[in-house]
Amino acid sequence: MHVLARFFAPRISVHAHCDLPCGIYDPAQARIEAESVKAICEKYAGNQDADFRARALLIKEQRAELVKHHLWVLWTDYFKPPHFAKYPGLHQLFNEATKLAGATGAKGSTDAGVAQQLLDKIAEIDKIFWETKQA
Amino acid sequence: MHVLARFFAPRISVHAHCDLPCGIYDPAQARIEAESVKAICEKYAGNQDADFRARALLIKEQRAELVKHHLWVLWTDYFKPPHFAKYPGLHQLFNEATKLAGATGAKGSTDAGVAQQLLDKIAEIDKIFWETKQA
Amino acid sequence: MHVLARFFAPRISVHAHCDLPCGIYDPAQARIEAESVKAICEKYAGNQDADFRARALLIKEQRAELVKHHLWVLWTDYFKPPHFAKYPGLHQLFNEATKLAGATGAKGSTDAGVAQQLLDKIAEIDKIFWETKQA
Amino acid sequence: MHVLARFFAPRISVHAHCDLPCGIYDPAQARIEAESVKAICEKYAGNQDADFRARALLIKEQRAELVKHHLWVLWTDYFKPPHFAKYPGLHQLFNEATKLAGATGAKGSTDAGVAQQLLDKIAEIDKIFWETKQA
Amino acid sequence: MHVLARFFAPRISVHAHCDLPCGIYDPAQARIEAESVKAICEKYAGNQDADFRARALLIKEQRAELVKHHLWVLWTDYFKPPHFAKYPGLHQLFNEATKLAGATGAKGSTDAGVAQQLLDKIAEIDKIFWETKQA
Amino acid sequence: MHVLARFFAPRISVHAHCDLPCGIYDPAQARIEAESVKAICEKYAGNQDADFRARALLIKEQRAELVKHHLWVLWTDYFKPPHFAKYPGLHQLFNEATKLAGATGAKGSTDAGVAQQLLDKIAEIDKIFWETKQA
Repeated sequence: MHVLARFFAPRISVHAHCDLPCGIYDPAQARIEAESVKAICEKYAGNQDADFRARALLIKEQRAELVKHHLWVLWTDYFKPPHFAKYPGLHQLFNEATKLAGATGAKGSTDAGVAQQLLDKIAEIDKIFWETKQA
Repeated sequence: MHVLARFFAPRISVHAHCDLPCGIYDPAQARIEAESVKAICEKYAGNQDADFRARALLIKEQRAELVKHHLWVLWTDYFKPPHFAKYPGLHQLFNEATKLAGATGAKGSTDAGVAQQLLDKIAEIDKIFWETKQA
Repeated sequence: MHVLARFFAPRISVHAHCDLPCGIYDPAQARIEAESVKAICEKYAGNQDADFRARALLIKEQRAELVKHHLWVLWTDYFKPPHFAKYPGLHQLFNEATKLAGATGAKGSTDAGVAQQLLDKIAEIDKIFWETKQA
Repeated sequence: MHVLARFFAPRISVHAHCDLPCGIYDPAQARIEAESVKAICEKYAGNQDADFRARALLIKEQRAELVKHHLWVLWTDYFKPPHFAKYPGLHQLFNEATKLAGATGAKGSTDAGVAQQLLDKIAEIDKIFWETKQA
Repeated sequence: MHVLARFFAPRISVHAHCDLPCGIYDPAQARIEAESVKAICEKYAGNQDADFRARALLIKEQRAELVKHHLWVLWTDYFKPPHFAKYPGLHQLFNEATKLAGATGAKGSTDAGVAQQLLDKIAEIDKIFWETKQA
Repeated sequence: MHVLARFFAPRISVHAHCDLPCGIYDPAQARIEAESVKAICEKYAGNQDADFRARALLIKEQRAELVKHHLWVLWTDYFKPPHFAKYPGLHQLFNEATKLAGATGAKGSTDAGVAQQLLDKIAEIDKIFWETKQA
């Protein structure tokens, strides 16, 4: 977390998830894994070693799977019917975001630009998430 | 993330991990799971239903295991010899934090106070982590 | 598989999934796990032994998680924009089905009736799935 | 499901497993993963891209592992001594099938023919399975 | 390892497994998990606390699952047709051992005696394993 | 286990772990996985086939991750403050060992010599472990 953020927001509660449910959710979990996906793409681009690239691909596969999982949890467990009523595009947004983490997106590509698109989708979700928490 | 934090720090990169390594790390991952552990303890305390409590215990076990994992990753993969030289108590801090997530801590207890102790330890690690990122 | 689908498509190979993608999908995967969830509820109801019930709860948690996972895979990986255009309620159907597998449904309940509701939702998805395979 | 089994047992619900036990088992779980393995081999053969092939290999490894797991569960958990007495070759059949899913079979090969051999073995198991369910 | 064992066998190679295959196998992996299962049963018997017992049951479930997995790997991956020809009861031995780790054995029971029966079966497998390594 | 070891130590209990805690621990678990890592490196060196090497890399990644996990468990769960007081270098030893299993060690390298360094570190831990068990 940025130093200023820390200063101005000393009591931030962190948020996640679990199916008790514990009531803790936070899109940061998906975003952190997606940042990892993007960083892997950049390292892949800068390293021609075949073994390194094989490792990059398999680790990227895992991180992208985690992105999908964290987004699915938000979509199913955090968001409720009133949220979907208020944000009519929310289903599609999640569907596009998870597709962007999958075979037709970050799993099937080593392009950091694709990973950035995924991050942008997650940012859209993050924005809505925090609006609903304010409400 | 708090709204003010968002305003003052619009470009915050989020941080995590992976063993490529991707170079992305963030103690928030451990902290989010620990918040979940604490919330589970609170829900456990407020609900006498035997089945609910059984579910609470098994989910807490999983989240606490994730706390341990995320801390272990930071300790082994992020922190380097110069960090341990600069922070002589860092090994012990991680050892105590992971013990607090285990059988003698949050796994073996349903006391939210124990989960809070775990969160406090993670906060100590978080502080050091961000100091090293500034350096 | 829907009875008519079976009749008109006797050579359909069984179908599943994976994020290559391999192109193999089949709602039977979710349904089988949901059948397991329902059977666990029935065995739970017929057995007062505390240890048996504790085991039933933890195994039900795992099977229900698999139901969610298999449904999420179909929703994100199999179904494409034209499908969602043709079936406007499909997003909501999946959202309801996965909620029924989660804390507010089969995870949080030992009622076989709730598990049956989950099976009924999966049957709705199954019907649409096989219609799209015919198309 | 065997064609005759299907004809004579049109209402059999699909079945799986778990170690409660829930009593639900179905060889379709192994078969679906094996279909995926075969489809991956075919896609591998038709795509020279090194990254695609690396992904194909790692995903095939996972699906083949699931084939082994589902078969092991049937062998240990569903089949009982009287079944092994009635089908003296059943142990060997399972041993060969799981070997065909492993390093000397579908894991170690990208030949769709090997994956088909695995599917054929699973079909033999499936036939016996449904005979025992009829009994 | 016992001190005498260490003295007389300083170059023991340890053995395991993996589906490359790496050629490393060792029944100790199954045995260690089974020792854990037995120790859990003993701790369960000596502790009336409901939460402790719930945790014991869920952890026992995991360790017993690992026993099954390690045994299945030996049965499928290490043992070859000539071994089964030489030891005609080997299939049945493995089947009984894995059943003893499952619902009708160590998973479904908290009796340390059942866990000991499992350990005895693993010891029989261990004996045959090392005979075949000598050959 | 070596035949002589078996003769002189017929009652050796094997040891592991779990977070009940069951009180069973054994560095052999980490060592077995590390032996596998080394064997994979040797097989990798002797086989030019691209697919074999891709499989070797991904399986090595998994086995090395298990090495880390088993070591982390020992460090956090088995060793207590008095042990760290008695062996002042123990924290660093574990940190170096787990780093040797990670990206800067056995995960990031196919050199069997690196895997041997990992095994040597594990042997140092093993020695201390058994000294503490004697005490």
